Amino acid sequence: MTRDNNDPLLLTPGPLTTSTATKAVMGHDWGSRDEKFIAINARVRARLLDIAGAADSHVCVPLQGSGSFVVEATLGTLIPRDGKALILINGAYGQRMAKMLDYMGRAYATYETAEDTPPDPAEVERMLSEDAAIGHVLAVHCETTSGILNPIAEIAEVVARQGRGLIIDAMSAFGAIPLNAREVAFDAVMASSNKCLEGVPGMGFAIIRRAVLEGAAGNAHSLSLDLHDQWTAMEKNAQWRFTPPTHVIAAFDSAIDQFEQAGGVAGRNARYSDNGKILIDGMRGLGFETLLQDDLQAPIIVTFNMPADPAFEFARFYDALKDKVFVIYPGKLTVAESFRIGCIGDLHADDMRAALAAIEATLGEMGVESGAPVN
Amino acid sequence: MTRDNNDPLLLTPGPLTTSTATKAVMGHDWGSRDEKFIAINARVRARLLDIAGAADSHVCVPLQGSGSFVVEATLGTLIPRDGKALILINGAYGQRMAKMLDYMGRAYATYETAEDTPPDPAEVERMLSEDAAIGHVLAVHCETTSGILNPIAEIAEVVARQGRGLIIDAMSAFGAIPLNAREVAFDAVMASSNKCLEGVPGMGFAIIRRAVLEGAAGNAHSLSLDLHDQWTAMEKNAQWRFTPPTHVIAAFDSAIDQFEQAGGVAGRNARYSDNGKILIDGMRGLGFETLLQDDLQAPIIVTFNMPADPAFEFARFYDALKDKVFVIYPGKLTVAESFRIGCIGDLHADDMRAALAAIEATLGEMGVESGAPVN
Repeated sequence: MTRDNNDPLLLTPGPLTTSTATKAVMGHDWGSRDEKFIAINARVRARLLDIAGAADSHVCVPLQGSGSFVVEATLGTLIPRDGKALILINGAYGQRMAKMLDYMGRAYATYETAEDTPPDPAEVERMLSEDAAIGHVLAVHCETTSGILNPIAEIAEVVARQGRGLIIDAMSAFGAIPLNAREVAFDAVMASSNKCLEGVPGMGFAIIRRAVLEGAAGNAHSLSLDLHDQWTAMEKNAQWRFTPPTHVIAAFDSAIDQFEQAGGVAGRNARYSDNGKILIDGMRGLGFETLLQDDLQAPIIVTFNMPADPAFEFARFYDALKDKVFVIYPGKLTVAESFRIGCIGDLHADDMRAALAAIEATLGEMGVESGAPVN
Repeated sequence: MTRDNNDPLLLTPGPLTTSTATKAVMGHDWGSRDEKFIAINARVRARLLDIAGAADSHVCVPLQGSGSFVVEATLGTLIPRDGKALILINGAYGQRMAKMLDYMGRAYATYETAEDTPPDPAEVERMLSEDAAIGHVLAVHCETTSGILNPIAEIAEVVARQGRGLIIDAMSAFGAIPLNAREVAFDAVMASSNKCLEGVPGMGFAIIRRAVLEGAAGNAHSLSLDLHDQWTAMEKNAQWRFTPPTHVIAAFDSAIDQFEQAGGVAGRNARYSDNGKILIDGMRGLGFETLLQDDLQAPIIVTFNMPADPAFEFARFYDALKDKVFVIYPGKLTVAESFRIGCIGDLHADDMRAALAAIEATLGEMGVESGAPVN
């Protein structure tokens, strides 16, 4: 929590504020085919598997690029060219998976609910039982659009019972929301270096059931995004096929060290939950309302409905908070005008309290009496 | 050249040894949608265009991932789904472009020469004049496989005369080998952050003729790799569609500062040429032979034929050099047993002399009398 620079604190869904230790690692260079880097890479892959309780059943395939790159790569690699998927959509990231399949020309059905409404597992089961062509269900664990936590365990049960494969975009949940392959059946889960594991951005990874990946040769629509090829090449010589983002990976290795030292998933969940509670309680005290009811809210990012007070102008609010070193996030919702504040990254209780003080001061400067929304 | 750590010097084609100043930039975090980062990104894009003399005619589209990602993205975005390309191949990177088109299911012809032989522009012209279906020619400026410099200006002349589009993989040449859009006609040139501009790995970029990119909507085979979508989104709000590798981009901005301060392309070419000359002269003094004759050799990476002396064992040579802090590179050739030594990155005359001294000492330790090859 000690910070040696004046960077703003990023209360966003990522890129995030990372620790000084994590960033310090990037003061070195590595040869990507040299044994020192190879050891770092192997360590990262093994520990990501462990975090998901998946070491016996799955393999970890890292990929260059943003989280969306590894989502697209996983879909392209695991869904056969003549396959069909069912996409559960309640936000921008579910929509994006549909767009990816459009590019690939692969068939899919959708089950869409409002951005503040989780999918109903019974409806998923009904859709699967009525369409035998659907081989895979695509779900988002925490939909960053709203911050909603989708019922992954219940969905996984239904998908397993129907004998289909589950692919989970766990981008903003992995490492903070428990997800264990020994308890929840999934074919693949995807996440990135720079969400709850608090590395810097530049790579993603997929944890894929070994038997499934072994059978996935020839599916991919892209050489760069072919995770079967990425995996088999890496198994062969422990190296990446194409130049890896060495500094990003080394920083990720350090971030995972710190994650483990802080109690792993349980420790991270506890800190983020604490951050979220301080944020939500404080904002409610200022009159703001959350989009989501508490039992649907993941401790990742919180959507607040836009205040009704005409003195509240989001752009001014954003800039004034930034001047006080807190960067927040615009809304991405279609159902309501809103903005978002994240509680992940190297942020602690004191930071959240300082952010609230800055928000209160900013409201005062703007002459906003209350954060209460219209409805 | 002052170094504050004990990292090995990377005499490879990348990732490279970068300057302390470049790495130091990564000690900060940026919000990817915040104006500070937006300014960095805009500055990087504008300066890359300037380096290619392309500000009036082309646009710069950066992309997350390795250099191969942006190569694949450019091919997928610019070659229509029913188009046909001619690929000039004399090494692994030409071969890789063919593999990319295989994944996409797009048609192509190849003109392949040996790894030590550049393509003949007259033959390119003959192939184009005989096949009107070919819309694009794909060429590699410096083929990193051997270090050969291909005759891009002559090829560009032929391609322009035949009214086709030229797409240049300039990965290991951009910034060190002159290539100016006002003199050489090209539709696109691709490179990455971590070659001759001496940034860290994690992003690539394509410099694409504006009129060509404007007409390229709907071609791409992949959402993540759609440079038309990446470009139009970035033009709209100056932001990346998906999370950018913020630290990598900020480091790249600093690396480009240093590039400009050191005299731009001319300065870099002079230093690398000097490095290459010291290396080649020194190695020849030890009996080694280069694969390429001097007029084909780019000052980027040099391929040496494997010595005939039975006491020479490459793995041992590599390890001993690494113990002396110099990391070299294995060969990637099919025509001959070889190894490679790079002369790019933050390496200077003293470093090359020190590397030669380490090589000479290592040969002594191994009991190798001469580096002379079999033939």
